[in-house]
Parts: sequence; structure tokens; C-alpha cells
Amino acid sequence: MKLSLFALSALLPSALALWPLPTGLSLGSTPLRLAKGFDIKIAINNAPADLVAAVSRTKGFLANDKLAALVIDRGASSASAIASAKSLPSLTLSLAFEPKGPCKSISAEAVGPIEGRSEGYTLVVPADGSGAVLKANSTLGLFRGLTTFSQLWYDLKGTTYSLSAPVQISDAPAYPYRGFMLDTARNYYPVSDIKRTLDAMSWVKINTLHWHVVDSQSFPLVIPGYTELSAKGAYSAKSVYTPEDVKSIVAYAAARGIDVIPEIDTPGHTSVIAKAFPEHIACAEATPWTAFANEPPAGQLRLASASTISFTSGMLKAAAGLFSSQFFSTGGDEINANCYKQDAETQKSLSSSNQTFLQALDKFTQDTHAALRSVGKSAVVWEEMVLDNPVKLANDTVVMVWISSANVQAVARTGHRLVHAASDFFYLDCGQGGWVGANPNGNSWCDPFKTWQHAYTFNPTANLTAAESSRVLGGQSLLWAEQSGPQNLDSTTWPRAASTAELFWSGPGGNVQAALPRLHEVVYRFRQRGVAAISLQPEWCALRPGACDL
Amino acid sequence: MKLSLFALSALLPSALALWPLPTGLSLGSTPLRLAKGFDIKIAINNAPADLVAAVSRTKGFLANDKLAALVIDRGASSASAIASAKSLPSLTLSLAFEPKGPCKSISAEAVGPIEGRSEGYTLVVPADGSGAVLKANSTLGLFRGLTTFSQLWYDLKGTTYSLSAPVQISDAPAYPYRGFMLDTARNYYPVSDIKRTLDAMSWVKINTLHWHVVDSQSFPLVIPGYTELSAKGAYSAKSVYTPEDVKSIVAYAAARGIDVIPEIDTPGHTSVIAKAFPEHIACAEATPWTAFANEPPAGQLRLASASTISFTSGMLKAAAGLFSSQFFSTGGDEINANCYKQDAETQKSLSSSNQTFLQALDKFTQDTHAALRSVGKSAVVWEEMVLDNPVKLANDTVVMVWISSANVQAVARTGHRLVHAASDFFYLDCGQGGWVGANPNGNSWCDPFKTWQHAYTFNPTANLTAAESSRVLGGQSLLWAEQSGPQNLDSTTWPRAASTAELFWSGPGGNVQAALPRLHEVVYRFRQRGVAAISLQPEWCALRPGACDL
Repeated sequence: MKLSLFALSALLPSALALWPLPTGLSLGSTPLRLAKGFDIKIAINNAPADLVAAVSRTKGFLANDKLAALVIDRGASSASAIASAKSLPSLTLSLAFEPKGPCKSISAEAVGPIEGRSEGYTLVVPADGSGAVLKANSTLGLFRGLTTFSQLWYDLKGTTYSLSAPVQISDAPAYPYRGFMLDTARNYYPVSDIKRTLDAMSWVKINTLHWHVVDSQSFPLVIPGYTELSAKGAYSAKSVYTPEDVKSIVAYAAARGIDVIPEIDTPGHTSVIAKAFPEHIACAEATPWTAFANEPPAGQLRLASASTISFTSGMLKAAAGLFSSQFFSTGGDEINANCYKQDAETQKSLSSSNQTFLQALDKFTQDTHAALRSVGKSAVVWEEMVLDNPVKLANDTVVMVWISSANVQAVARTGHRLVHAASDFFYLDCGQGGWVGANPNGNSWCDPFKTWQHAYTFNPTANLTAAESSRVLGGQSLLWAEQSGPQNLDSTTWPRAASTAELFWSGPGGNVQAALPRLHEVVYRFRQRGVAAISLQPEWCALRPGACDL
Repeated sequence: MKLSLFALSALLPSALALWPLPTGLSLGSTPLRLAKGFDIKIAINNAPADLVAAVSRTKGFLANDKLAALVIDRGASSASAIASAKSLPSLTLSLAFEPKGPCKSISAEAVGPIEGRSEGYTLVVPADGSGAVLKANSTLGLFRGLTTFSQLWYDLKGTTYSLSAPVQISDAPAYPYRGFMLDTARNYYPVSDIKRTLDAMSWVKINTLHWHVVDSQSFPLVIPGYTELSAKGAYSAKSVYTPEDVKSIVAYAAARGIDVIPEIDTPGHTSVIAKAFPEHIACAEATPWTAFANEPPAGQLRLASASTISFTSGMLKAAAGLFSSQFFSTGGDEINANCYKQDAETQKSLSSSNQTFLQALDKFTQDTHAALRSVGKSAVVWEEMVLDNPVKLANDTVVMVWISSANVQAVARTGHRLVHAASDFFYLDCGQGGWVGANPNGNSWCDPFKTWQHAYTFNPTANLTAAESSRVLGGQSLLWAEQSGPQNLDSTTWPRAASTAELFWSGPGGNVQAALPRLHEVVYRFRQRGVAAISLQPEWCALRPGACDL
């Protein structure tokens, strides 16, 4: 049988714990246990170490999740059915095609060309006691399948079981880019928080960490050859990401199928660079900040200065060397015109070279992007670079829409690939109070709070032609850190970021009523694994799908 | 000198870390260190054990807070001034008047008659190396003073120092009731979370935990003689508060100057009682819930039944025995008329006794309140009991305003004492998404989010006459738990609840611009003590008071 999302939820509330929902799914209603000696076998010659490690982590989840079913009796009434169920002896992983040459690792697949990544898989879990089979075209697909497999099981007094065998899944993502953006500049996050977040991201098949690593407020990234930036610009000597930290984060992510796209926003959002290289920054900490920047402190790279272009290009290249992604974001949002108008240096450069601001921005962008291209990176930019301040960009440039989802069509019409990151749907930090001081009502520019329901009902191709739609790579949740930090990372992000993850894996059109019981499962399973996802409803409701619907 | 709140903040941003702001305060600008052998002495015969323990905790804070000053260099530039500063050898606590008989403990004072509690103190910290002196009329006042003393100090490489000596403080609260309400019924909080919250409350001089312990969704309170209620109504056998837990929480609170007012909401919000005593509940889990209750599951005590009144009175008395507060809240909010209309039992009782609904509610209330009075408790009720469904209430009854701050005047005019708890200012859970299912936009009834600034600028006596104003006991923040739990308790509550704490300690009229730097201090100090208060701004702003003001 193949049931619609809604029908499945109505019939099998406790059994349907998969998130994101597989695009092809058939479930039975036969109980099945994991055998005591249950094993996961890799039928691949010389399996890559990260796949072996992923199997080991999956076994850990099966042993340690200990998630009681989200039904009123937490599964107790199924005890005898479970006791007499067949046992699943094994799960065997294999590749659908014998690879030519050595099998590529998950880590290699995770950072490969985005449109070419193969994340699909098929998973069959028979009800008759024969072994389960997971197949994919890549180790990355096998990893996604392992993630799904680990969500099938509940615990009842030490027995790991499902009530939904046989299971047949044929799954692949609707969009190749499913991301989460983290800002580590406004407030600092220790490496352990980032790694915990990468784990959680992988559990809902998010495949991109867009790491907004530095900004005007602090420069935690230690860049070889440019270490003064973090030495003088980090909040403290401990609030940094060393090259070893970055390599460790990138490797940790890749092994979990996640590409880490770094962002060093330019030419705006660079005030902190003035602490080490004052010669490159216009209007550094100029006051009142409202006249020079969208947020304090003011400060922008002197985009018309040849020396600053050279410095920026060198820094971006050096930073790019720390990351394995094909992408590197140079930002380009919120450039303040007045800052440059008031900066004598910039005015001198512009007039001596007989350039307008936009011409200078164009040259700055082309030069810095060329530097990145010389080390194999494609650029990512914010929407202003094609709308407000349109500059020449290489065809492979990816544009992120942030100001408003209303701008998606205009961006798509530029012919560039785009990522949905609009503040009116995907900004996790909005609606929790404004952060600027001397603001008696405390409201924020991007009120209200973006609910999981709001993001879930977003249509990624609304008003787009087929050609424009083909440029949509996917979308992401974003956590800007003016009011975020380690203290509320989990509670702000989870489970809301999972909502967006499902939208871009399973595709749009999902129904919040049907999704809610499964989203509770995400919350409860995340907690078992050490991520502090918040409650969406009273537990009374979580155990009674539909009972708290309007 | 005696400076206004604003002037102090402008002059001494790093030194003014006191929250709530003392009502009388004079600070100098002389550096002072804590001596290596710094000691806190209690010049009281037979000092109560909880005061001795409070002194010990204070010493722990002084030794372990290790809070670097919130200035750009985190205090480094003051190193030589600190090194050559005088040392404070001691703090001596004494009572202003020799007590008649044995000195009352903090715990006893904390639960004494609310208008009679003495929380004021004077604190003098000389700059010349002579000892500091803390005086009060009660051990409770001494405890408040210790709390203030512990906020005066920063750490620089192991030296504990202040730059603001001499300090002279004469402090007392503007309002006797400064509370925090926690709902432990929609979702369960372990005892450890409650105790951590009590600690945090005491650090900002909140003196009341209004414990909404049970509700329609779950009944975690184990009541002697009525244990079936929790046995059948708690979310799990572990999700309960045993009598030992309650005593431990009440004692922990009292030792920190906090009165624990329990609430068992009646006659509405009682669906869960049906699991153990179905005979007492009308419309239990009736569907659609929207027709029978403001939230699922529906279910109300059969208020017109003599047997149910007797049961309720007995249960309330038994529950009251677990607490030491003079108050006990019987709730009384959101009574659903249709539930009783559709309940044949209730209709039979009403007609056989020839009572209207309101007459029956009046009798139910008087009988249950009389039961509480028989064990020494004054009742607390929600505003509907004097506005929507006005019943006869004893003069000592305290009314909580929750629906809207616009109802304060009407409540005050009834002549009852009142507590500010209005949803439009003090509900910490609002604005983070609606929790009912099948709600595509995900909005909630009490949007938007209540910012700390909004609560801070509340006027407790707006539109009230002097006589009406005299009935305002104070106010509180409230955390309803439909979407809250241990995962977001700290991040939802802190520092916002501190904003309300200062409003009702220091009095209204505070300025958010001046308050923000001190509120950062609360956040950073809370973190040092293990409470995950969230960032209000980028750290760049927290270290530069005013630099991020609009």
C-alpha cells in the first residue's frame, strides 16, 4: 500500500516516526523486533572509514535511543505482540552499482558538485525475519538510508521494536540544498555546540552548514597568514576557531553528509577588521552607527582601494583553504552608501580611478571572486548583489534570498541559482524581541516569530516559471546570533529547523496537521540523543495525535 | 552622592551590576579588593541555620563567580589600580534590633504575612580597608543584602575586586509580592530544574514561586490520601512530585526567601482528575474540545455536586498540608458554561437544589475556601472569580489579573488585593508560536512575544486611585508550559523574569536604556552560576554600554 501523508498519520500515528518523510514509502502493520545479535553489514569492498563509523553510530542509536512510542500507554499494550514478533537479524548495505575504482567516502560525496550528489536510497525491512536491505548509488545515499532506518524503532523495556513492518522505502530529496545557517560572530559558539548541531542536522538530512563565521562584531576565525584578525578581533583568546578546529568541524560535517559553506561577508559587515588592519576599513566604529551601518559597529572594506582588494583576495583565499566545500560566500549584503561617501580615502580612490561606487563594487567583487575561483571555489552572495547593487557575477554564483520571499522571482530572473533564506519565513531568531538598545517597546524589524508551521507551508516555486524553478537549489533556516548563543541554540533551532528540512527534502505541499505527530517524534528522539529540542505541545497532546487539533 | 538610575549607568557602566537596583544607592570610584582571608561574620546569637547556609553560599559565589568586568578589556587596564587597592577584610551581618526571643529564620520570615515581611537592609562597604557592614530588621533582610553584596564583585586573574567603593545602600522593595509562576502540568519539570530556578529567582530578589502544579493534562502532585490522582494522572511514574519532593522544594525556596504558593485550579482545568475519580468530572475529554474548554482536554469538577465539593475540599486541604505558604490558589479561570449545560449530572444537581450556575459556583468556592481556611490558608483566585463569575470571597482573598492589564482597575475596585500577572505584559511563553494542531499559520492567542522592555515599562498603578493602588501587592512573570519544558526553561525565563523582578522591587519608571547594561550583568553572572540566561545583544554591545542604542 502507499498512503498519503495524512492517511498514514491518521492510521499509524505511533509508527510513522520518519522525518523528513520519504518520498516513496510503504508501511505494514506487523510487529518486528531487532534481534539480540542484530548487525549492520557493509557489503562493499574496502568500505570507506566514514561509512564504517556511520554504521557504528547507527548501532549506537539503536541501542541507546530507548524511545518509548508516543502513544498513551507508551507501547505497553503492544507487549505481547512484540514478544511474539519475528526478529530482524541484520541490515545489509550495498551499492546499487559496483563503483569504478575505489568507493567514494561519504565525506567526499558530501562536498561534491551539488547537482551531482546522489542522496537517494532504497530500504526494505521485511516482516518475516529475513534481513533488511539498504541500497544506494553512493555511500552518501547509504548514510541517508541509515538515518531513516534508525528512526523506525521504539523501545519497550529493553526490546527494540517496530509495529510497521514490512517497510519499503524509495527515497530521494526534492532539492539538493537543504541548509542551516549559523552566525558565530555576534555571539560565539564553542566547537562542541557546532558539532552537536551537525549531528542534529544530519538526523533530518540537512546537508549544508552555511557558516557565517565572522562579522563586524567579532572575528573568531584564525586564518593562516592573517592571524592578527582573530588575535585582535575575537571576543577572547578562547573564543576562536583555530585551523585545527575548522578542519575538525569540516571533517565531522562531511562524515555526516554535510557540506560546510563558509561566509566572510564583504565589503560590509567588516568593522572588526579595522582592529588589525585599520587601513582597509572605512567608517570603522563611526557614530551614530545608524548613519553608517544597519547595525553596530559600522565599518566596511575600502572597496575602491587596490590594496584593500588585494588584502581581501588574499584573506579569502587563505580562509578558503581551510574548507573543502566547492562554495565560499562573500556575502555582499547591507552595503552602506553613506559610509563610503564620508570616507575620504574611498572618495579619493573613486575619483582617481574615475569609478562610480557600483563600478568599484563590480571590480571588488570580480577580483575577490576570481581569487576564490583560483582555488576552486564558486561564490555565494546575498540578494543585493543581483538586485540592489547588481554586479557582474560568474554563472556558477549562487544567490541567497534573505530580505523577503517577495524577491525570489526577481532573483530567479537573473538566471542565477538561488537558495531560499528569506527572513519572512526562515529566520529562526526573529520575533523574540529587538536587540538594539534604547528601544522601549522592544520590537524587532523581523517580527513576528517564524513558526514551524509558517515555514512548512512555504512554496519554493511560487510565481516561478519552470525555467526559474529549475534554479532553486533549495533552502535553509538561519540563526543570526544577536540574541542567540550556546544557551538557546538548541531551543531556538529545534524542532523548527526540521520543518524546513522536510520542506526541501520531501517537497512542498505538506500539511501541518499530518506533520505534527511526526514532528513530536523528532523532538522526543532528539532529546534521547542529547539535543534539547523544545516541546511543541503539552505531552498530553504529543501522546494523542489529533486530539489537540483546532 | 546619590545618582539617578540613568546617570549611574552612564558614569559607571562596568561597576553598576546590581539588579534589582537598590532604592537607595551611593557608589564611589575607589578600587577595593576582597582580602584573601575575607570572611562573612554573623553577629547574631544562635543565628538560624538557613542564614549560616546563605552566608556559605555567598562565599561560594564570591569565590566561584569569576565574572570578568563587562568592559572592552574585561578589566585588564584596571590591573594596577586593583593591585594597589585596599583589601576588604570582612562583612559583618547584624540585626538592627535585638530580637525578642530567638531570631527568626529566613525560612520563617519568607512565609510570614506578606505585608509584614521585612526585606529591607542597609549595606556599607568602606573603601578604606575597614570591614563592611550589613544590617537589617530580619534575617530575610540580611539575605537580600547578601544577594546584593555578591553582585558587587568582578574577577581579574583570581583577584576579586570592585571599582565602586565606598558603597552605601539602603534598600527595600516597592512591592511585597514579586513572583514567578511555573506550570508543571502541561509539561513536567524535574525537581532539579525547579531548584535551579529558585536559586536564580533569589538572585534577583523574587520572593514568590506561584506553582501551577497540576492541570487538565497531568497531575504530578502526589497528595497524601489522594495518591490515585497522580498514580493515574501523572505523565509517568517518574513525572511526579512526591511529598518529600514538595517539602524539599518548599524548604529550598524558603531558605532563599521565597514563598511557594501552590495552585490547584478549580473547578475548571481538572480533566485529569477523571482518570482516578470519574464521578467528579463533567465532560471529561469531551470532543470537540473547543466546545467544552479553552484547551484540550475538556473536563471540570461537578461544582454543583455535594460529593464533589466534599472531595475537592478534602483534596485541597490535604494538598495544602504539603506547603508552608499562607496562600493557596484555587484558580477559577476559564470555566466553560457549555460543559456544565451538557452534563446531565450537573443539571440534575442544579435543578434539585434550585441553584443557578453562579450560585453553585459561589457555594463551591465558599466551601472549598472554608476548607483551606480551616488549615490556615488564604485563597488566591484568577480574575474571573471577581469579574466574569463574581462570587463571594473572603476579604483576605488575593486576585490575579491575567486576561488583560486593562482589567486591573475593575479588579482593584472590588476591594481585593491583586497581583499583576497580565498576559499582555508578563506571559513569558507568548509569541513563540501557537501550540494547537491543524493551525497552518501557527499564531497564538497571546502574540506577540513579551519583551523584557515591554514588561519593564509597565506601570503597576496606571489609572488607579490611591486606595486602589494600595491593593496592588506586586506582580509576576508567568511561564505556561504548553511549549515549555526543561529544554527551554532557562532560555525562556532569563533574563526576562529579572526585568519584572526589578519593576516590582525598585518600582516603576525605570528606563530601558539605562537598565540594559545592568541586565547584561545579570545574564553574564547567571551563566557563571549555572543558569543559561540568553544573550540580549551581541557581546560587542554587552561590553560597550550604549554603543548599540538606537
